[in-house]
Amino acid sequence: MTTRNSIEKLRATLLGKTQSNAMATGASHDVAHASVAESKRLTARSLDDIPPAYFQFKDFPEYKEYTTMQWYCQKQSFPQSLFQPHAGASDANVTIHGREFVNFSTYNYLALGSDERVKNAAIEAVRTFGAGTGSGRSITGEIDLHSAFEREICDVLGTEDAVLSVGGYSTNAFTIGYLCRNQDLILYDELIHNSALIGCKMTGSRRFSFPHNDYDALTQLLDQHRGNFERVLILAEGVYSMDGDIPDVPKLVEIKDKYKALLMVDEAHSMGVIGPRGLGVCDYFGIDGKQIDILYGSLSKAFGTCGGYVAGPSPLIAILKHYAPGVLLYGASPTPANAAAALESLRIMREQPDRARRLQDNAAYFIQQAQTAGLDTYRSKDSGVVPIMMRDSELALWLSMKLWENGICSYPMMHPIVPRDKTRLRFFINVNHTHEQINQTIDLIGDLLKVAPKSKGLF
Amino acid sequence: MTTRNSIEKLRATLLGKTQSNAMATGASHDVAHASVAESKRLTARSLDDIPPAYFQFKDFPEYKEYTTMQWYCQKQSFPQSLFQPHAGASDANVTIHGREFVNFSTYNYLALGSDERVKNAAIEAVRTFGAGTGSGRSITGEIDLHSAFEREICDVLGTEDAVLSVGGYSTNAFTIGYLCRNQDLILYDELIHNSALIGCKMTGSRRFSFPHNDYDALTQLLDQHRGNFERVLILAEGVYSMDGDIPDVPKLVEIKDKYKALLMVDEAHSMGVIGPRGLGVCDYFGIDGKQIDILYGSLSKAFGTCGGYVAGPSPLIAILKHYAPGVLLYGASPTPANAAAALESLRIMREQPDRARRLQDNAAYFIQQAQTAGLDTYRSKDSGVVPIMMRDSELALWLSMKLWENGICSYPMMHPIVPRDKTRLRFFINVNHTHEQINQTIDLIGDLLKVAPKSKGLF
Repeated sequence: MTTRNSIEKLRATLLGKTQSNAMATGASHDVAHASVAESKRLTARSLDDIPPAYFQFKDFPEYKEYTTMQWYCQKQSFPQSLFQPHAGASDANVTIHGREFVNFSTYNYLALGSDERVKNAAIEAVRTFGAGTGSGRSITGEIDLHSAFEREICDVLGTEDAVLSVGGYSTNAFTIGYLCRNQDLILYDELIHNSALIGCKMTGSRRFSFPHNDYDALTQLLDQHRGNFERVLILAEGVYSMDGDIPDVPKLVEIKDKYKALLMVDEAHSMGVIGPRGLGVCDYFGIDGKQIDILYGSLSKAFGTCGGYVAGPSPLIAILKHYAPGVLLYGASPTPANAAAALESLRIMREQPDRARRLQDNAAYFIQQAQTAGLDTYRSKDSGVVPIMMRDSELALWLSMKLWENGICSYPMMHPIVPRDKTRLRFFINVNHTHEQINQTIDLIGDLLKVAPKSKGLF
Repeated sequence: MTTRNSIEKLRATLLGKTQSNAMATGASHDVAHASVAESKRLTARSLDDIPPAYFQFKDFPEYKEYTTMQWYCQKQSFPQSLFQPHAGASDANVTIHGREFVNFSTYNYLALGSDERVKNAAIEAVRTFGAGTGSGRSITGEIDLHSAFEREICDVLGTEDAVLSVGGYSTNAFTIGYLCRNQDLILYDELIHNSALIGCKMTGSRRFSFPHNDYDALTQLLDQHRGNFERVLILAEGVYSMDGDIPDVPKLVEIKDKYKALLMVDEAHSMGVIGPRGLGVCDYFGIDGKQIDILYGSLSKAFGTCGGYVAGPSPLIAILKHYAPGVLLYGASPTPANAAAALESLRIMREQPDRARRLQDNAAYFIQQAQTAGLDTYRSKDSGVVPIMMRDSELALWLSMKLWENGICSYPMMHPIVPRDKTRLRFFINVNHTHEQINQTIDLIGDLLKVAPKSKGLF
């Protein structure tokens, strides 16, 4: 294969001209599966005519896409390939292959995953209960750490009840996937996380996205469609994970009340981070958790472990605990280590609100220094996510690589994760970042951009 | 509400006459969401006419179902309600509310979740890495425990590569959900686990179930439909989690090879349990893991922690690691504690095949004693799952309650989890069960069945 052909192929792949479904991850509306009658109308292939691309993984179009990307990365000698194992903890610093980096790629925002109290709680739970609970929660897989977390998150949020589950992504997806049905409508902010989109895909519900934070558009959609559906679910995030901005949650509450819809807020990147006490959107806006129908949170971000929770009215939680497949039903229960870590992190969040404030101060300082240096931090405000916008993907990749060479870790976010003209490097701010580390990073970015090569228009 | 009305309502609920979608968990084929044109043809309701059942959880039909069941359980004074926390470890015995039970409700088959080596490995991992990894695996959330587990599971199975993810249920669902598309076909054994059904529901693929282990029916479906679709995925389990039987995997391999289909085997209840070394379906049948396209396993059963893996050809794993949402992409990484526990459990499985053999001996002894006592263990053979079939759900509930009163823990499996005429108590056999415990249990069941009350035909 010539280099030119390979580049053409790469370009075709990146521009989405192949038949691959790779990365087409739920945003598009799936069509109905063909009826038997329809499938019989097709001309059936004989077994001899079934192409390898239908049954050999190496011939799948997404594998071709993968090998093309691997080829490109090798050609560029990227030192910063994916799946690099780190040693020890990952917070403001991380050690990879024996080298310490200033780390802007961890969402361990408050450094609680590496906190001694949190670690000791996890260790004690393993000693007491073992490495697992032995069953699903409803059938003797319950331990008191599960309900303790649920009680305390309710104390924090003001909600009636909560449910703790094994994964963040899965909790979001399966909660949405259960609550909505064919006769329902889902309206979601266009920047909603993939886990919500996959949840939508499970529902069979009619769904529309609305432009980011555009409440007029949301209201128009409700005016036009609300009366045609049974349940109407509005999906928003506490902090958008790519842009680092916070929606007007009180406005969303007002809209959903007026239209008799349900509001679900994804607190993956807001809980533990935003608000005067760092306790999420309710704390930030000074509203009662009871005003939001469904508060979902992840335990892999500020909580420093892994898992997910949903908090809300008692009837919602009873439904989810007893009937929603994959939330608890048919699934395993959170391990003692993870449940204990989440609980201890929550207690530290409540006891030490200065952690969130130091994180917020660091983020504000990062944005201020970046803007002073003429960098575009886009919409980021009051959160732990700060993008620095790039001209194109080639520049983003190059800059990320150069930062890596200089001991700074930040990953590029490119199409299709963000729109093609919204390529960026994403910086997760950490409570333990120092002003010196931030200054050094911003200065280096400024210096590097001055000598950045012209993009070749490859993608 | 009178008792009679309540019972009528309960009966209606249990017979599925309400509009609830509770428990209708993916087995039925979802229809397409209405097009905009169609939705406009409906007469839109005014906001004043939206009934509370569309926006208040307490009026959702599944919440009505839940409260009815709660009422019934309270009326019966069931001591064995769900979500009872246990103290300490859960293996052959479990302590609940200060009382020790002989435990047939845990799938901690080999007692590895409570093994000192496994616990120490989890503790050491928390000390080294913390309570979480701080990121998704591709972006500095990788630790060497992840790849070590993947390498060693491949050593065991003979597969080229593997991927470790945070949850068992989610790994199964999201793997299927990613690999199949609208133009594909899924053929699944009618007893397949709910996680697979939910995965199917995500795909938009055409799908048919075939009667349990009926390879003629599967072949007929392939004869009729294979040529009309692109990818064809056949889903089976290593051990069926309700019946405890093992399918003819070599036969499935032969069929999928002939029809150029892909075979996925769910090893949740077979890995660590069946085969001369306890190493799953490949060990049991003496076949090479390379003959099966996709081997999925759960880490909450014999591995004693929580998580999931997929093992198979390198291109499959490359695709799943880089593109499949919820497997790794967009999700958090397995915590150090869980990854370390899974790895140590795998090592113990390999070093101590006598654990699986003792478990198998216990299961054979349980079946032999049950059958001698005239009890029906249905299809169970060579696995760790043994059902004892019951006349109806009332008897199953009553017997489960009486066993509980006598210090034996086994849960009833009723409609809709199993067909109405296939109600049973399910017994998970443990490596540490003693013959005395098994004898005591079988004797007690025999005695209790002699004095069981006549069913009232409530459900």
